[in-house]
Amino acid sequence: MPLATQDQNRLDQLHRRLKEQTEMFLGYPVAKDFDCRALARFLELPLNNLGDPFAPSTYQVDSREFEREVVTFAAQLLRAENDSWWGYVTNGGSEGNLYGLYLARELFPQAMVYFSQATHYSVSKNLHLLGMRHIMIRAQQSGEIDYEDLRETLRIHRDKVPIMFANIGTTMTEGKDDIGKIRTIFQELAISQSYIHSDAALCGFIAPFLNPRPAFDFADGADSISISGHKFIGSPIPCGIVLARKRHVERIARSIAYIGNLDTTITGSRNGLTPLILWTAIKRLGEEGFRLRVAQSLTVTEYACDQLQKIGVNAWRNPNAITVVFPSPSSQVRKKWQLAAAEGVAHLLVLPNVTSVQIDNFVADVANDMGRS
Amino acid sequence: MPLATQDQNRLDQLHRRLKEQTEMFLGYPVAKDFDCRALARFLELPLNNLGDPFAPSTYQVDSREFEREVVTFAAQLLRAENDSWWGYVTNGGSEGNLYGLYLARELFPQAMVYFSQATHYSVSKNLHLLGMRHIMIRAQQSGEIDYEDLRETLRIHRDKVPIMFANIGTTMTEGKDDIGKIRTIFQELAISQSYIHSDAALCGFIAPFLNPRPAFDFADGADSISISGHKFIGSPIPCGIVLARKRHVERIARSIAYIGNLDTTITGSRNGLTPLILWTAIKRLGEEGFRLRVAQSLTVTEYACDQLQKIGVNAWRNPNAITVVFPSPSSQVRKKWQLAAAEGVAHLLVLPNVTSVQIDNFVADVANDMGRS
Repeated sequence: MPLATQDQNRLDQLHRRLKEQTEMFLGYPVAKDFDCRALARFLELPLNNLGDPFAPSTYQVDSREFEREVVTFAAQLLRAENDSWWGYVTNGGSEGNLYGLYLARELFPQAMVYFSQATHYSVSKNLHLLGMRHIMIRAQQSGEIDYEDLRETLRIHRDKVPIMFANIGTTMTEGKDDIGKIRTIFQELAISQSYIHSDAALCGFIAPFLNPRPAFDFADGADSISISGHKFIGSPIPCGIVLARKRHVERIARSIAYIGNLDTTITGSRNGLTPLILWTAIKRLGEEGFRLRVAQSLTVTEYACDQLQKIGVNAWRNPNAITVVFPSPSSQVRKKWQLAAAEGVAHLLVLPNVTSVQIDNFVADVANDMGRS
Repeated sequence: MPLATQDQNRLDQLHRRLKEQTEMFLGYPVAKDFDCRALARFLELPLNNLGDPFAPSTYQVDSREFEREVVTFAAQLLRAENDSWWGYVTNGGSEGNLYGLYLARELFPQAMVYFSQATHYSVSKNLHLLGMRHIMIRAQQSGEIDYEDLRETLRIHRDKVPIMFANIGTTMTEGKDDIGKIRTIFQELAISQSYIHSDAALCGFIAPFLNPRPAFDFADGADSISISGHKFIGSPIPCGIVLARKRHVERIARSIAYIGNLDTTITGSRNGLTPLILWTAIKRLGEEGFRLRVAQSLTVTEYACDQLQKIGVNAWRNPNAITVVFPSPSSQVRKKWQLAAAEGVAHLLVLPNVTSVQIDNFVADVANDMGRS
């Protein structure tokens, strides 16, 4: 049965509206320069990457071979040792964080979770879901965790294994916790058991190309890492990659083995299209392409920050960040450019598709706005 | 940057293989007769139905208006009272079950969860994740819960609020728990507080059209219901619908209000394409279309069961089920038709796209197989 004309029209209108909205779009960390034309035909098929991408499955209409290549690329980029890791393509960064925290809870059921006050609210939601005890630590103005507060708080709770939820790019200012410094604190306090999860939703595919390279990945001591697929990489469908040390995942597999199934993913039926989207991005760009993408974003970010400062806006950014932070403009400007604001502060995110022309237009709007007020 | 030729070829090969695999496909509850051609263009856009579909959002590249229509259609079909329900489009049936159980835990933290041994393994996984106490109840051969075992077990644990996880179509035999009978048991035992979640992954859009109508929905006393979108409705991307009584969701919203955000979904960033896929299916079919779809499936299911019996296979099905159960054929036949088997039993699922010609081919393979052995 075909769609009725009025329904077809509504889809057409939606598509037009969304195309317009996508043009005016600087406030979210979402790249828009993906090209999925080669993948539209997969919408004819009941693709389903059921269960563990590394385990055999009777369901054959899958893209798990491509999914394995995606997570392998990410594992190499994030310096996981060969054969020491496991991972899958998730429905987004939150699921990856839930997975990392779940692993940590299975390993250390009596542990205490620490995270900074600049952490995304979804993490508190996840911790509530998992029933995990947690303490919020002060953040510096940059969004990076306050190491002194962390040290003093850990000192008081030395009887509990610490689970560190580290932000590798906070939502508001792109502050990055340094897991090297965090491990040093653990050592100084003679803490022998711990777990570190890196929430690298935005920066998972940025940080490996920065100089100095932030301390956030497996070689730096992370036990699990979550990355968003629809942020820096770019995907029309929210998705992500979660990676974890294989020995932790094997432990969780044992703890649920009584269920009679070794599916250690959070969901059962899984999207088979998003692994193809990420695979296409990775094949198109390669490691060198991502390096260029990062360099380009950083150049335009610096330009945006400079231009805002030139018109008298108190704009700033963290070193090597693609987020520019500034006092919130009027609600009209925020609405037009879809800027989220909190506590009088707004930010713009200079993903690789953002051009200096867009920045000029935006800065002109802010200047007009200042003239009016 | 375009894809290299060898990468393009790999996608072409994958597409060809999946198309073939999709033809030979009777063992999973996945309809294949969707038509998403009108939606391929949305793969150009960074669609994201961030957060609660009923709450305002600054992220405008969304399809939340269409999502609200999808969940409203489902709420009416499942006899929720006007303005008394809430819901959203999930990434699949499992997420809906996790959501229902999470709501139940927030309402009754000390409760005991009951579910039959015919329940899908993902439910144990969810309960483990949520840290909820639970007892597995015997199932009848049909897959329906053993009410006597349930009654006796409830009697022993009358000090704890019961949370009933009801299967409205088990994975293996499509057995349906009768929540009317379950409520009667609660009443007989003078249990005044309880929670019932209906897992209607396969049957959510089938059961409303059956005669007699199974007792499973809001009018029958369910507190939350989860439905898969990629099963009977049909979607190339795993998805689902979860609905719950609004007063329960408001309660959960209060319990996480300290987070400073009223997003009560499990995930944050959410797929904006799957609501459009479900919307298109609902607009194309309407309630009358789904009724026909159910009738057609039942006719072909009866035919499949008859034909298997005619060649001497001990096939059977539950009343009004689209699942035919029979002793497992050889692994060649299972592999060819992608049949899952457990404990010597296999099943085929007669979704609306399955034709009597396919059934004839399948039955011929089984007959050949029997001749050889």
